[in-house]
Formats: sequence, C-alpha cells, structure tokens
Amino acid sequence: MTPFTPPTADQLLAIRVNAGIEELAATERFAHAEPDLVEAIVEGVGQFAAGEFAPLNRKGDLEGAKLENGRVRLPEGFEAAYQAYVEQGWNAIASPAAHGGQGLPFTLACNVLENLGAANMAFTLLPMLSVGAIEALEHHGSPAQQAMYLPNLVSGKWSGTMNLTEPAAGSDVGALRSTAEPITEGPNAGKYLITGQKIYITWGEHDLAENIIHLVLARLPGAPEGSRGISLFVVPKYHVNADGSLGPKNDLRCVSLEHKLGINASPTCVMSYGDNGECIGELVGQENKGLAAMFTMMNNARINVGNQGVQIGERATQQALAYARDRVQSARAGSPDKTPVAIIEHPDVRRMILRMKALTEGARALLYYCAGQVDRGNLGDAAAKARAEIIVPLIKAWGTDIGVEVAGLGIQIHGGMGFVEETGAAQHWRDSRIAPIYEGTNGIQAADLVTRKLGLEGGDALVTLFETIAREAAGETALAALAQDCAHIARWMRDEASLDDRLAGSVPFCTMAAVAVAGWQLMKQAEAVAAGAAPALAATKPVTVRFFLDRIVPEAAGLKAGATAGAGLLYALPAEALAG
Amino acid sequence: MTPFTPPTADQLLAIRVNAGIEELAATERFAHAEPDLVEAIVEGVGQFAAGEFAPLNRKGDLEGAKLENGRVRLPEGFEAAYQAYVEQGWNAIASPAAHGGQGLPFTLACNVLENLGAANMAFTLLPMLSVGAIEALEHHGSPAQQAMYLPNLVSGKWSGTMNLTEPAAGSDVGALRSTAEPITEGPNAGKYLITGQKIYITWGEHDLAENIIHLVLARLPGAPEGSRGISLFVVPKYHVNADGSLGPKNDLRCVSLEHKLGINASPTCVMSYGDNGECIGELVGQENKGLAAMFTMMNNARINVGNQGVQIGERATQQALAYARDRVQSARAGSPDKTPVAIIEHPDVRRMILRMKALTEGARALLYYCAGQVDRGNLGDAAAKARAEIIVPLIKAWGTDIGVEVAGLGIQIHGGMGFVEETGAAQHWRDSRIAPIYEGTNGIQAADLVTRKLGLEGGDALVTLFETIAREAAGETALAALAQDCAHIARWMRDEASLDDRLAGSVPFCTMAAVAVAGWQLMKQAEAVAAGAAPALAATKPVTVRFFLDRIVPEAAGLKAGATAGAGLLYALPAEALAG
Repeated sequence: MTPFTPPTADQLLAIRVNAGIEELAATERFAHAEPDLVEAIVEGVGQFAAGEFAPLNRKGDLEGAKLENGRVRLPEGFEAAYQAYVEQGWNAIASPAAHGGQGLPFTLACNVLENLGAANMAFTLLPMLSVGAIEALEHHGSPAQQAMYLPNLVSGKWSGTMNLTEPAAGSDVGALRSTAEPITEGPNAGKYLITGQKIYITWGEHDLAENIIHLVLARLPGAPEGSRGISLFVVPKYHVNADGSLGPKNDLRCVSLEHKLGINASPTCVMSYGDNGECIGELVGQENKGLAAMFTMMNNARINVGNQGVQIGERATQQALAYARDRVQSARAGSPDKTPVAIIEHPDVRRMILRMKALTEGARALLYYCAGQVDRGNLGDAAAKARAEIIVPLIKAWGTDIGVEVAGLGIQIHGGMGFVEETGAAQHWRDSRIAPIYEGTNGIQAADLVTRKLGLEGGDALVTLFETIAREAAGETALAALAQDCAHIARWMRDEASLDDRLAGSVPFCTMAAVAVAGWQLMKQAEAVAAGAAPALAATKPVTVRFFLDRIVPEAAGLKAGATAGAGLLYALPAEALAG
Repeated sequence: MTPFTPPTADQLLAIRVNAGIEELAATERFAHAEPDLVEAIVEGVGQFAAGEFAPLNRKGDLEGAKLENGRVRLPEGFEAAYQAYVEQGWNAIASPAAHGGQGLPFTLACNVLENLGAANMAFTLLPMLSVGAIEALEHHGSPAQQAMYLPNLVSGKWSGTMNLTEPAAGSDVGALRSTAEPITEGPNAGKYLITGQKIYITWGEHDLAENIIHLVLARLPGAPEGSRGISLFVVPKYHVNADGSLGPKNDLRCVSLEHKLGINASPTCVMSYGDNGECIGELVGQENKGLAAMFTMMNNARINVGNQGVQIGERATQQALAYARDRVQSARAGSPDKTPVAIIEHPDVRRMILRMKALTEGARALLYYCAGQVDRGNLGDAAAKARAEIIVPLIKAWGTDIGVEVAGLGIQIHGGMGFVEETGAAQHWRDSRIAPIYEGTNGIQAADLVTRKLGLEGGDALVTLFETIAREAAGETALAALAQDCAHIARWMRDEASLDDRLAGSVPFCTMAAVAVAGWQLMKQAEAVAAGAAPALAATKPVTVRFFLDRIVPEAAGLKAGATAGAGLLYALPAEALAG
C-alpha cells in the first residue's frame, strides 16, 4: 500500500469555496476560524494522519481486531497512535469550548475525519463514533451528565459508542427489545437496570481509551410499541465516581466480534448488557424520546459516513495513480515508437484515473458544501439548515457509492495485482463496501430524500435548489439540463406521484440530484481557481471539472427513466413469483 | 449461503431462442443435439452442480487452497466431487468424438460451465482451464501429441493449464522472457528445455487429476522480439510414456500461491519451470507462432469468463431473493397496516431484486446468443463468425461488469448482514471481481471492439448489427434509440475518430453496445414466451424484460457523451501533473 499524501490544496479549496469558511469566520461564533488557523489545522491533521494513522492501515487489515478473554486487542501501534491523536488535541476541534473543545466549525471537524479516514478508515471509526456520543450528551444530557462525561469524551481520553441495532431491529430501529427498569431504592435510585443484546456496535470494546461511554436505546416498562417507546441511556463501561475517577466495571461485555468483509481493525461487537442483572445506566433526555434524540445527531453521522466515500476515493486514487505511473506495459497503440510506456499513458487507464479524481473531487465539493450549510444552520440560518437536510442523503448515498466505484477502478488499474491482497488495492474496495450500508442504507437515504426532504419549505426546497443550479449553470449545457430534469422530477414527485412511485424512483433520483449538486459545486471551484484561488490546482482542476461535467453529468441524466418509471412494474408480480 | 437452484427454464429458453439450438440440430454435425438430449444435459448438469459443487463453495472460500511441501491441498470434498464430475462425463460435452468427446455444440459446453460455475466459481476454473489446453492441442498439436494428451484431457482424468503471464508480461504478453532450448541429442532430441517463471497460473498445481498438462509460452533462441517471437509448448507435470502410462515428474513446481481477494479455492500459482535445467516440453504448432495459437482459443476463453458474470449474477440473485423474502423489517411505507413485512415488499428492495434478475437474464441472453454464433461459425458461416467476434468483447466485459454489480446489490439487500462474511453474500462479490481482470482486462476488450472488431467485414459488421437492432426494435423506443446511437458512434469511430479518440471512448461504447444487443436478445425471449415457448416463465419474463428495456437501456444511452468525448481532455496534462 502506497503512503498517504494529504490532498491539502484541494481540501482548502473546498473549505473556502464550497463551505465558505471566510463567511463563517465573519460571524462571532466562528471568528477564530481565521485563514491561518484553518490552514494550520488542515495541514497539521493531514501530516498527523499520514505519519501516524496511514502506516497502520494495512497492518490493521491483516491482523484485525481480536477478542481474547472478553478483551478486544488491536494490532501493535494502534494504542500509541491513538494516544498521540488525543495528546495533539485533534478530537476536540468542533466540540463546545465549555466542555474543553475548540468550538470550531463542523466543516473543520469534517476535515479532521477526512484526513484520518483516508489514512485509516477502520481506525477512524473510533473517534467518529465518539462524536455521536458527544453530540447526544451535548444536546440531551443533563448538566451533571455533561460535566461527568463530556470533558473526557471531548479530549478523547474516553471514547463513545452508539447502540441501536438488535438482531430483529436494523433499519426498523423501532422494533428493538432491550429494556430499562427504573431503580427505585438504594444508592442507584433514579437510575436504570439495562438488559439486552446489541449488534454491530462499532468499537464497542477496546483498551485504547480509559473508559467507553455507551449510548444505548432501550424501552421503559409500559412504553408504547414502536419508535415512540424508545428511550436513550448512557451506560459507561466503568462507573464514574463523583470525583471523576473510575469505579468498578459495569455489567456489560463484548460477546463476540463479527467476521467482516473489510474495516478489519474496527471491532464490530455484539454487546450484552445486564447478563447479571446489574448493568446500570442513566436516562438521557426525556422518557420515550430516545429516537428523536438520536435523530439530532444522525445528520452529522450521515455526513461523516459520506465523508468516508471521499476518504476511500482519495486513498484509492493515490494508490492507483502511483501504480499507473510506475507500471510499464505495452507501447502506445498506433505509435511508431514500440517502447513500452507507463500504463497511465494508455487512453483507457488515463480515463479511469481521471474518473477516479473527478468523482472524488466532486464528492469532496459536495461534502464541504454540506458541512458549510450545517455550520450556517447552527448559526440560525433556517434556509441553510433546510439545504443541509437536503444534501445529507445525497452525500451519504452518492458519496459512499462513488467510494465503492473509485476503489473498484483502483483494482482494475492494478490488473491482476489488484486481485492480490498484497498490493492493498483490494483492501480499499473491501473497506469501502460498508459505507453504503451503515448509518441508514443508501436506499433509506433515497427514501428520506423523496419523503421528508421533499416536503421541506412547503415542498419548495428541492425544486428551488435545482432551479438555482439550472440558472447558475446556464453556460454548462449538460449540467443545466440535469438540474432541469431534477427540478422536473422533484415537482412530479411532490405534486403527482404516489408514495410508491416516489420510492420506486428514489435511488436513481438521489444519484441524479447528488451529481447535479456536486457538478454545480465543482463549477464554482473551477471559477475560483480561474480567478487565482488555488495556484497549485490551476492545471488540474479545470481538467477534472471538465471531465465531471462532460462525462459524469450526462451519465446521471440517463437515470431519468428509472427515476420516473413508477412502482407499477415492481409489483406486477407477487414476491413468490419472482423466485420462479 | 443458500443452496443453488439451477435456472433450468431460463437456460433452456436462452439456448433455444438466443443460441437457436434447433437450427444447430438441423445440421449434420450437431444432429444429435436433439431437444430431449439438450434438456437432459441442462437438467442433469444443473442437478449435478447443485448437489456436488454448490455445497463446497463456502467451504472452499473459508479454507482455500493451501501449498504444503510443494503440493497444493484443496478442502475435503473437492477430490470426490471432481471424480464424480469426470465419471459422469460432463467434461467431454463439446470435445470432438475422435478424442472421446461428445461433439456437441459449444452452446451446451457453456451451459455445463454456467451451472458448475454458479454452484462454485473457484472450483469450475479447473475444468474451464482444461478447455483451453484441449483446444490448443486440438487445433495445433501433432497427431502424436493429440493421441498422447487429448483422450485424458477430454475425459477430465488429466487437467490443463495456460501459462502466459510473467511479472513483466501481463497485458503485454509479447514481453515474456521464458525460454525454450532445443535438445539436439539423446532420447529427448527434438524436444526442448523450458526455463522460466510464470505467474497467475490458475490450478497450476493440485492432486485432483492424475496429471497436469501445462501449455507454456516461451521464446526459442534467436526468436524475434515481441509477440512474433513466442512459441507454444506442451509441458506435462509427469512425463507420459509411449504406452500412455505416467513416467517420472518433470522439472517444474509451484513456488507459491497468491493470497487473493476471492476465488480462494482456485490455486493461483507461481510456477517455476526448469529450476534444475531438466524441464522438458514439446513444441506445439509452428515456431514463433505461439501467440497466434493462443488467439484461436482466446475467443472461447473470453466467452467463458463472461459466462462467470452470469454465474455469479444468478447465484447472488438467488441468495438475495431468499433473504429478501425471509427478512422481516418495517411496515410498508404509507400503509395503514403497521405490521412489518418481508423486505422484498419495500419498493426499493424490489427494484434491486428486479435489477439483479434483469441484468443476469440479459447477460445470459447475450451469452447464448454469442455461443450460438460461435457454433454457426464453426459450421462455416462467415457472417456468424464475424458476429461472434463482435459479441465476444461485449459478453466478456459487460457480462463480468454486471456480475460485480449484481453481487454488490446482493450485499446491499442483506444490509449489515451483507458485510458479515457468514452469510456468503460478500463471497460472491469478492469472487466476481477477478472476472473483469483476467483473460484480457475489460479495457482490453473494449480496445479490441474499437480496433480489430470495428474493421470486420470491411468496417460494416458493427454498423450492420446496430442497424439491424434498430430496425427490429422499432416498437421499443428506448432500445431503438440506443441502437441508433451505437450505429452512429460506430460510424464515427470507423470514419472520423482518431485511434486515441476511439480508445478514449471504448469502455462506455462497449457497455452501450452490450446493453443494446442484450436488450435485443431479451426482446426476442419475450416474444417467444408470449408465443408459448416457456410456460414456466410466462409471468416473470415479461417483467424482467420490461425492466431491462425501460430502465437499463436508457441508462446505457447516458454513456454516449463519454463514448464520443474523445481523448483530448485525457491528455490535457502530462501524467506527472495528475498527481498534484
């Protein structure tokens, strides 16, 4: 596996142009996000990721996380790298200053994750999951809970997990069966006894942090059925004493680790709570409002998963580019000179490299556009908040789809060597495949787009977005046409289509919408570069943007038939007939 | 992993409608391919594959092939299954009767491989590689060589391998460096001493067959540089005595096995020939004509790899369908009934299932159409031979691309379970990924289409094909439009475009062409089913064909911009600038 070179210039361009960091820094809250600090963070975390996280990526894949006598062991080097990460303060970028964070924009937290995850996706799930626990407690915890847990979560001294899924409750979280019984007497009165089994708990058990703060969804006695009867609990691995020191271990354990296709260094745990009836947790927020609490952090979590598509795209592209420049095979077709050339000189290899770059840069532009809208939403801008809510399913679904595609192209460029695990090209592809699944499958993202998001701003938010793109991209025929198609479909879905028809076309429409927004944001990058914004990218950016607008945008237009075909054909046969 | 159910009805439909088996059986050479025999073969090999090969698929992935003291060991059960395969005569379907074969059409050999490979892709590479050795000796071996090797290769008692690739000679076979030194004295005079190392030798070493017949490309002393200086040699693992009994072991060995992404039960060997200067082989065919000899068998080998896309598509679809009908999660969106349903009832899951089925059936239609043209070509039909040559890159490239896509959809339908190896969904995806690479990468297939194949029949063969489709599909608007686009691109490539421009658009064009031909062949299936050809498919076939024509065909039309964009942008920057 080739080393990781942080794509600092392209990240800074996206942070400036697509997230609009200078506008953010003009507000009181983010006034300290000045250009020098932004550059220092982007360059600093890039170097850290390349130096500390990247060298462990292949090793983590080969050795994986292992469960031994109830303890999860990581390959050598992970513990030291995590300590360095905590000591250097990278975990605290976007958390509130009140809890020890730096209070910087979410945009910069995205950049920290982007660099770390490109270096080592499996490892970076550890801080990524902690973010969810921090947000849950920040928004829903009591002052006492915040004081007890947040400083160490923010620093990274402790890590956090999210416990939603159970064997019969995956996409349908409301079906979960874990229980929480109020304790009415004794020193723990007011707390709850938690009982149940959770699956797919990322970094559910490990020794890299001193304590693990589990956020667990469970049902109170007599709670309503379904998603309206779920409450959120904080359940520490080690009890925390009043003075902040660690007490005895809670009654919870990692039962087993999943044997997975990829991200092998990320322990995916089956967690058991209350085997001995002594697992104690505290309610976070209100009774039966647990799912709503989870939803407040879900947007950012989904953006962070979309970010993983950018990460794997970047890493796979760098590796394929290095190989294509190094590997010599065959002379150029039609050339009188019969000397073999580096394969990057062959037209189709170059097409693949440019496609990898264009898709990755497009997803990055979309990611930081989304992050910038989140930051504006947090500043009270309602239109930006609605815009962010539209972009979330796009970056999550399309970002992760292109992650898989780009990693697949990386294998293809390696030829036979791509299928041999030693090169590492295959690892990127295996790792990438989880991202379209977790944090809401991409089908669920698309459903969210054509249901809840379609109704935002009285049903006008989506149409307005695409009409804006069509107008601003008037000089770019293919992009303008795609945006007009999207606006047309959005109107049809809003005004005419049945729910089934919308869902039947949701995935193709989600892809079209994402490509339209990404193309629009890339167009803005190209304009900024033409105006001198990023001299280091003056040569390449016009090429990758043209590739995207001329080739990837028209492909997305080909999805229109599928987006508007409706559900009739899908239900023409009963399910049992499809097996025939 | 779910069991394998042979898709007998759909295979028989494709064999009748797309391969036109009844026309073939009307010729003297294939007169014995009567309907009863065809059905008996398709049903028989399907049952055999399901019963003997399929149960070993997951086991083969988990345990893999292992090299121990120079011997390759396969998981328990492989040896017995291979013996049963040989004893039942499945290896001999399409080989000439003169060498113990049944002399049946290639179409039926495709079906044997399709069933075996759907059951167990890694295992089926063993007979698949033997086919190549049989064809090489059948077309280029001396009568003595044929008598010595063919009967046991045809029966399957011995297996065969193809040895082309070396570390510096992959796609550019002409760069190989292995040597063959004539023996001028002693009992082996007239034979050759073979020296060199070969990589990626599929089933290069194992104990399932009594002998392994290696076909090896090497250079004679003073041979011209490049591909015009390569000769073909037959190099047995065990020398064969004049009476047919086995003699001592030849000086060749398996040095190591590759650690691969998939097809773990297929030993991918690094082979070393002549470590002790005593590896003896015989020249096959003429000196320096080895590559031409390889090309005669390359068409069928490429079809057989395209077939693997159909195989993995079928198996992954069956598994996803079983899961989607079994897994209960969430009520139907918008339904007043809040009872959770099997996920196949949700619109997007159903869309994915239908997409998997439509792509697999489309690739199968294309596969058997191609096979039928090969059989007609072997009967002396020059137009059919040219048609087959056009279809070969389409089925190889698009067939294997849809194999990966369908297996990926299978993972997605499994949700989190798809990323966990225990379900087997991930294995299909890992296994599928080799097929776009070996036997000429899909980029090389596309290059073949826009160079050599573009020139067939004075440059009219491609245009004629697409004009035929456009005419016959006049009632299917999207398909007719796609075929017209393809005809237009073919004319542009033939008459105007530079070689670089053609190569730059080759992969998108190859996909468009494959979808057009597959859609056309599916249309013929639908017409035949409507006329009563396959009562078992009367309900499903119209649905999968409509899905293909209404959704997949328009997507392919979206590739037109990429197919015609030319090479200019690809070379706007030097390779070193792309790393920036």
